[in-house]
Amino acid sequence: MENKNNAITSQSQDFAQWYTDVVRKAELMNYSSVKGFINYLPYSYAIWEEIQNYFNKRIKEELGAQNVYLPLVIPMSMFNKEKEHVEGFAPEALIATIGGAKTLEDPLVIRPTSEILFSDLYKNIVSSYRDLPIAYNQWCSVVRWEKTTRPFLRGSEFLWQEGHCLFETEEEARENVRKALEIYDDLGRDLLAIPFLKGKKSEQEKFAGAVATYTIEALMPDGKALQSGTSHYLGQGFAEAYGIQFQGRDTKLQIPHQTSWGVSTRLLGALIMVHGDDNGLVLPPRVAPTQVVIVPVRQQAEGVLDACKEIAANLKKQGIRVKLDDNEARTPGWKFAQYEMKGVPLRIEVGPRDLANGEAVLTKRVTGEKKVMKIEELEAAVAPLLDEIHNDMYQKAQKMLEAHITEVKTIDELNAALDNVGGYALLAYDGTPETELKIKELTKGGTARCIYKMLPEDTDIVDVVSGKKAIQIAYFARAY
Amino acid sequence: MENKNNAITSQSQDFAQWYTDVVRKAELMNYSSVKGFINYLPYSYAIWEEIQNYFNKRIKEELGAQNVYLPLVIPMSMFNKEKEHVEGFAPEALIATIGGAKTLEDPLVIRPTSEILFSDLYKNIVSSYRDLPIAYNQWCSVVRWEKTTRPFLRGSEFLWQEGHCLFETEEEARENVRKALEIYDDLGRDLLAIPFLKGKKSEQEKFAGAVATYTIEALMPDGKALQSGTSHYLGQGFAEAYGIQFQGRDTKLQIPHQTSWGVSTRLLGALIMVHGDDNGLVLPPRVAPTQVVIVPVRQQAEGVLDACKEIAANLKKQGIRVKLDDNEARTPGWKFAQYEMKGVPLRIEVGPRDLANGEAVLTKRVTGEKKVMKIEELEAAVAPLLDEIHNDMYQKAQKMLEAHITEVKTIDELNAALDNVGGYALLAYDGTPETELKIKELTKGGTARCIYKMLPEDTDIVDVVSGKKAIQIAYFARAY
Repeated sequence: MENKNNAITSQSQDFAQWYTDVVRKAELMNYSSVKGFINYLPYSYAIWEEIQNYFNKRIKEELGAQNVYLPLVIPMSMFNKEKEHVEGFAPEALIATIGGAKTLEDPLVIRPTSEILFSDLYKNIVSSYRDLPIAYNQWCSVVRWEKTTRPFLRGSEFLWQEGHCLFETEEEARENVRKALEIYDDLGRDLLAIPFLKGKKSEQEKFAGAVATYTIEALMPDGKALQSGTSHYLGQGFAEAYGIQFQGRDTKLQIPHQTSWGVSTRLLGALIMVHGDDNGLVLPPRVAPTQVVIVPVRQQAEGVLDACKEIAANLKKQGIRVKLDDNEARTPGWKFAQYEMKGVPLRIEVGPRDLANGEAVLTKRVTGEKKVMKIEELEAAVAPLLDEIHNDMYQKAQKMLEAHITEVKTIDELNAALDNVGGYALLAYDGTPETELKIKELTKGGTARCIYKMLPEDTDIVDVVSGKKAIQIAYFARAY
Repeated sequence: MENKNNAITSQSQDFAQWYTDVVRKAELMNYSSVKGFINYLPYSYAIWEEIQNYFNKRIKEELGAQNVYLPLVIPMSMFNKEKEHVEGFAPEALIATIGGAKTLEDPLVIRPTSEILFSDLYKNIVSSYRDLPIAYNQWCSVVRWEKTTRPFLRGSEFLWQEGHCLFETEEEARENVRKALEIYDDLGRDLLAIPFLKGKKSEQEKFAGAVATYTIEALMPDGKALQSGTSHYLGQGFAEAYGIQFQGRDTKLQIPHQTSWGVSTRLLGALIMVHGDDNGLVLPPRVAPTQVVIVPVRQQAEGVLDACKEIAANLKKQGIRVKLDDNEARTPGWKFAQYEMKGVPLRIEVGPRDLANGEAVLTKRVTGEKKVMKIEELEAAVAPLLDEIHNDMYQKAQKMLEAHITEVKTIDELNAALDNVGGYALLAYDGTPETELKIKELTKGGTARCIYKMLPEDTDIVDVVSGKKAIQIAYFARAY
């Protein structure tokens, strides 16, 4: 498609600038006066609300989760108890030291994540195996003091959900971790039209304080990976550090097994990049705040506006999010460009000539493909068409992902894959943090995104960095 | 009703302790380890979600409002610009001074309210009358460093919504303020079964930075008033302080008119107090997380559990929030007390003898009234019964409110009314902050909750404190 909007840098010219242009021009966000913090404008927040609706339903029904709200702040004295966790989060903490015009004796860390607060809660409400399992979730913002920020991708404050669960047994906890990841994967496929690679993080890349971290990773058009959600088996470390115990079925005191899982407004960044093009956003129908825009052409002509209103009313009745733009101060051409920029999945035009034939013109945002349709058939056709658009978008992204997975055997091949193909390269290695750090250095930022598979004990594959026996194959990529 | 649950202090014995007992025993909240901060547990958060659903629908449809999310923090340098506002909020500010292990040059105030942040946003997105009106709303938590706190009523952090709107004209802005207050009033009547007094705040009691504040005030059973929501006409003060301007229809630069309005989790405090009794919570059906609980009696007896399951399935199909408690480890008697404590509006019991007659026993939580009904009639009867319960609860609270409004002419009468009747006393006065402060002193805390009416210019009523001419009659009360 031709780039109709001069205001956006093209992707091929400068992908990063294209991204910045789109988030601003499509009115998804703007920069606040607080450095590193953004304003989530209605157009992005409405997408976030769709994600919330989907996710709330799934976790309530399938994980028995209940929503709660815990404090914004963690006393420093409490923050310091789980060692690995503190080391991971302390460097980017925002810390309040003054309250009510007095210096606080125990400064307060603005929550970067809430494992500690949930552990502190669980210590007080769990005493018997009868109190388990517990599955709580909260929607909130968290703060991580970042030096370099990008809208939705990395910021000093972002919105997310964090699920925190507690179980009698490791088995149940691991099952919960698996299920949460499954729901994230479904959310990608069913709602965002984004395919993810899913898998376990390496030791080097796992969450600070976790026994094991599982991740969903998306491919961006610039060849970089985007970690889009994580699900952690925390083991008993937090429970031990924060004193959570319960009387087991055998009447003995036991330590529960804990999990946590989260997705954030980073998903909006994924959505923008995976589907967007040189005309702006392309939104998958199920999260699009406006799914169908109706643009009357020569709307003063007899019957045109009435026909548009009737189409709008009929679609609205079906629960389709439809907008009729009858603003006379703007030309149809201006509106076409505007709603392309905003990524509205389907446009319906009706002009006097169409109307004379009882027809409307439908245009799919993702392909630009046009279709003339009888107005009387619209009511039944639009919902399936939106599903078709969703499926096409997912298939396209899926093909893109598959085309960007390369098997490599050496660091040279790895570099060639990351430089020339982009995306993910499958490399066998010894699984150690040392090797990963070395690879990161040798590839200018390539990291293990997740493990593809473990190798058999008797493998003869050798790690090309350390010379030791390889133990696993991982997807390596440069990442956001 | 007899107090079946020894764990709760009775209201007549110690109302404050009753409140504390109920919020804990009904598992609405518990105290976090962070002083002044609470954990909102699933049972209270689910009620909050019902309030969110109701309110989101109303403001989106009727005020054209859109949800957004703005930063958690306000730079101190920005905070200091609107003088009255700063003076109101600075004393209870929580201030972050360290970020990323470095001292911040410009400390960050954790938002106590977001007029400043919205003004800063509007400055950047408004340039023409075509950009107006704007109606944004956000759901978030705010922090106010309080010395004495009570769950849901006063805390260092609470959840709320804050609407912030911008208009071309004062008239439109004032209309928006009025409509928002109307929606709050409806929310009380239609959802929470709480009647409010509505009206304008006095100069002394208005919001820091507002031209005029309107309020909804509820009556608590201990005779105190509870401010439950406010809607402010902010005039042009914030716009001037933060530099918001637009080109008007006359092409001249103009300053817009601003409003803000909010309700918080204080509504949960109102809900608990207005309806609760010595057996615990009494929830109005439309916000109750569980609307109907089904308790099988002798559930091993043939057919009992199956009948309960069928009733549950039929009610669920209608969208009624129903819970079947078939836990064999607990007796029906224990369950009755438990769900009374939790305030579930309607209980349905089915035992073998009921079943033999094709019957179930229904008990209304609010009155304890029992009703035997044919099981086959339940499906059609329950939804209307829930509405009936709602209406009864509202009427009861309305009568209570009406019975606690006294007209008084002197400070002695005012004191007698506040001491002996409780609730609100209507007193004419001169409208000055000085007189209100004096009245507060003379009545041990009585304040003007809202203005009942303005007096005519030629009134001969004299203010009994200042001896000046009275200008208005206000509702005075001791308040939370």
